Amino acid sequence: MDVQPFWLSESQARACIQEGGGLTPLYVYSESVLESSAREMMEFPAAYGLTIRYAMKACPTAAVLRLFLSLGLSFDASSSFEVHRAVAVGVPASRISLSTQELPADDAELIRIIQSGVQINACSLRQIERLGQLFLHCNVTREIGLRFNPGVGSGGTAFKTNVGGPHSSFGIWYEFAPEALLLAQSFGLRIVRLHTHIGSGSDPSVWQRASELSLAIVRQFSDVHTVNLGGGYKVSRVMGEKPSVPSLIGSPVRKSFEAFASEPAGPYNASDASGGGGRKLKLEIEPGTFLVANAGCIISTVTDIVKTPLHSFVKLNTGMTEILRPTLYGAQHPLHLLFTAQTIDQDRLPLQRYVFVGHCCESGDLISCAPGAPETIVEREMPRIEPGDLIAIGGAGAYCSSMSSKNYNSFPEAAEVMLMKDASMQIIRRRQSLEQMMQNEVW
Amino acid sequence: MDVQPFWLSESQARACIQEGGGLTPLYVYSESVLESSAREMMEFPAAYGLTIRYAMKACPTAAVLRLFLSLGLSFDASSSFEVHRAVAVGVPASRISLSTQELPADDAELIRIIQSGVQINACSLRQIERLGQLFLHCNVTREIGLRFNPGVGSGGTAFKTNVGGPHSSFGIWYEFAPEALLLAQSFGLRIVRLHTHIGSGSDPSVWQRASELSLAIVRQFSDVHTVNLGGGYKVSRVMGEKPSVPSLIGSPVRKSFEAFASEPAGPYNASDASGGGGRKLKLEIEPGTFLVANAGCIISTVTDIVKTPLHSFVKLNTGMTEILRPTLYGAQHPLHLLFTAQTIDQDRLPLQRYVFVGHCCESGDLISCAPGAPETIVEREMPRIEPGDLIAIGGAGAYCSSMSSKNYNSFPEAAEVMLMKDASMQIIRRRQSLEQMMQNEVW
Repeated sequence: MDVQPFWLSESQARACIQEGGGLTPLYVYSESVLESSAREMMEFPAAYGLTIRYAMKACPTAAVLRLFLSLGLSFDASSSFEVHRAVAVGVPASRISLSTQELPADDAELIRIIQSGVQINACSLRQIERLGQLFLHCNVTREIGLRFNPGVGSGGTAFKTNVGGPHSSFGIWYEFAPEALLLAQSFGLRIVRLHTHIGSGSDPSVWQRASELSLAIVRQFSDVHTVNLGGGYKVSRVMGEKPSVPSLIGSPVRKSFEAFASEPAGPYNASDASGGGGRKLKLEIEPGTFLVANAGCIISTVTDIVKTPLHSFVKLNTGMTEILRPTLYGAQHPLHLLFTAQTIDQDRLPLQRYVFVGHCCESGDLISCAPGAPETIVEREMPRIEPGDLIAIGGAGAYCSSMSSKNYNSFPEAAEVMLMKDASMQIIRRRQSLEQMMQNEVW
Repeated sequence: MDVQPFWLSESQARACIQEGGGLTPLYVYSESVLESSAREMMEFPAAYGLTIRYAMKACPTAAVLRLFLSLGLSFDASSSFEVHRAVAVGVPASRISLSTQELPADDAELIRIIQSGVQINACSLRQIERLGQLFLHCNVTREIGLRFNPGVGSGGTAFKTNVGGPHSSFGIWYEFAPEALLLAQSFGLRIVRLHTHIGSGSDPSVWQRASELSLAIVRQFSDVHTVNLGGGYKVSRVMGEKPSVPSLIGSPVRKSFEAFASEPAGPYNASDASGGGGRKLKLEIEPGTFLVANAGCIISTVTDIVKTPLHSFVKLNTGMTEILRPTLYGAQHPLHLLFTAQTIDQDRLPLQRYVFVGHCCESGDLISCAPGAPETIVEREMPRIEPGDLIAIGGAGAYCSSMSSKNYNSFPEAAEVMLMKDASMQIIRRRQSLEQMMQNEVW
């Protein structure tokens, strides 16, 4: 049982609600936790330089982007829309890298992105070809990165979709490396970066393997000076989940980069003049969850408690409209009942067992689900809960405001507030109005 | 293999894209199919009157609501926001019924809804109490409906969430009926409607059981004149799925209503003067999927085709941002390659096997998944596909534009177009702009 989130008190929650316009549900982010997560990630060991690119799809709210910008981070955009969004709030194009399943359809738009200095990683042979043609119209250095599928992923079950391996659509299959190189060369493109995100989780040995697979591909590209190992750094949201420790994960990665640099020049990199035989590769990583997951929560209000012979259901005024992860993955999020310590002791004990459900007319809108089993009910033990109580859903900074079934049942987008380091609150996103939800309709 | 959706040709698709602003992805709805679905549902046998309430959460687009309004349908709102949305586009409040997990928090707002004539079904004991208190401030007849959980649902697996049964949070547990009645009476509220949606699917025998369970509760409420059996009418989107046939489903329901009407008056309904001993109950049903699922499709463009040793992946410029059902449920949707018949015969054969994926940087954004297994890859056999081809995702009228992971990866909401009966196209929702996506942000 989690009685209180470590960074948000009941009085702070109420002040955040006021700052956010007076209503729940409300996303609250902690500037302090965002900053400490970023500083922890900066300890990722890198032999010859490290660039941390925030995977902005995890939470693209402007205030979050600008905070990370001020801390020196760079950015990973997964669509051209994310590029424009980051630029619109002040991120220099040169700090953005684009690796996407879908380049913009419009040539003029893509040319503008190339000209702006965004670093693009081609994710398919077709993307190499399209970029090659468009670079001919641009006055910029003809350099791109390539995203490869190194042949393995983080899962491995047969015929399950994955971020890497033969069942993954992400990146260029590693055996097509020679073809990719020739294609790039035919347009005068130099391949200077290699990207191999496979979602390696928290296990250092998996990161070592990812690193070595990547270096095997690097050997075929003599101009590559930067290797991007992507993201996938898991965090612990609830007891029993294993967190990633950047300083541990990165250690074998650093060693493999150092060993690479000390290698004699091989047949593929004879033209490479950096260092002795090998190259001093720069490292890029793309954390999303790691940076924001535990820095965000959703403050919700208990609207009802209903009973059946088997369960007491707590109904919250949030659900898959603000947090889809339980419904989609069976993800586990801590639930914190916000109230003063005295009240707990005197009135709300002994602990009781509750099922927590969301507000949508959808049986799958279940918040207290079993790990990996979205539809399986799990009860949580909590002090006695009453309608009107505030419940904070923790671990909700990543893939919640950015990946929810927004507007389902016509519920509006929730407001977002930042709890600042100086203990003040700042609204960073206003609640959507019904008029805005319908603003593009024509009837 | 589906080569062509029955109601949309390639040239119509291209005209729809133009009408929608020139870009894909694009939702297209067929006025003709919407109308014929509504007319088919009107054949649901009802002994003493039928009200069809469109479950607007399935697709709340104004043009769809107004079409159904013009055909004489009523509306089921699952939130107060849906009530306001329907009223805003011209639906009379008297045609709307509200059954929600979450009444509006603001008393003044709820009073306005009560005063407007919206028919409210209380879904918990607490909702009865709150409505009872607020009706005292209103100049309207003190009548409400009650949503009950009749003790069984459509699933049945232990500890799985459900729309009915002991693992469901929806409605008042049926054994609390006496308590609910006393509570309503204490505020002078008459219970005139009974609601027991349990998602009965396409099997007439399940509908018969739902009907009988509902009537057993009706016997305890002498003022009830209307029974609402909810929705859950499945449709066939792909070969092998069993469609609901309203005229068949409704037959046992009609018989049970007729038998009820001919019963002698029992101890609970001694005060009931309608008919002989029993009552001539009006029937309400709340179809969503049935009315719109096969009337909508998503037109998308093939942006890329990538290969691994095991698969050819077709990348579409849509995905969970417009259609979450495959990722969430492993739902099956037909895929139609749109092109002229001559081209198929001459150039695109023999058939090949493809995996279809969406455009999000998310391994779960898989469209050609296995039934009920969102992450399991299934290949579809199709004519040879090339980048630039148009693919229509069928069966996408229900729970697609209304229930997707909107704005994930910062992709904007797609436009929507109605293909009219006179073969013209009308834009009914404009594509969202990036500025609109960010309009509530403060930085």
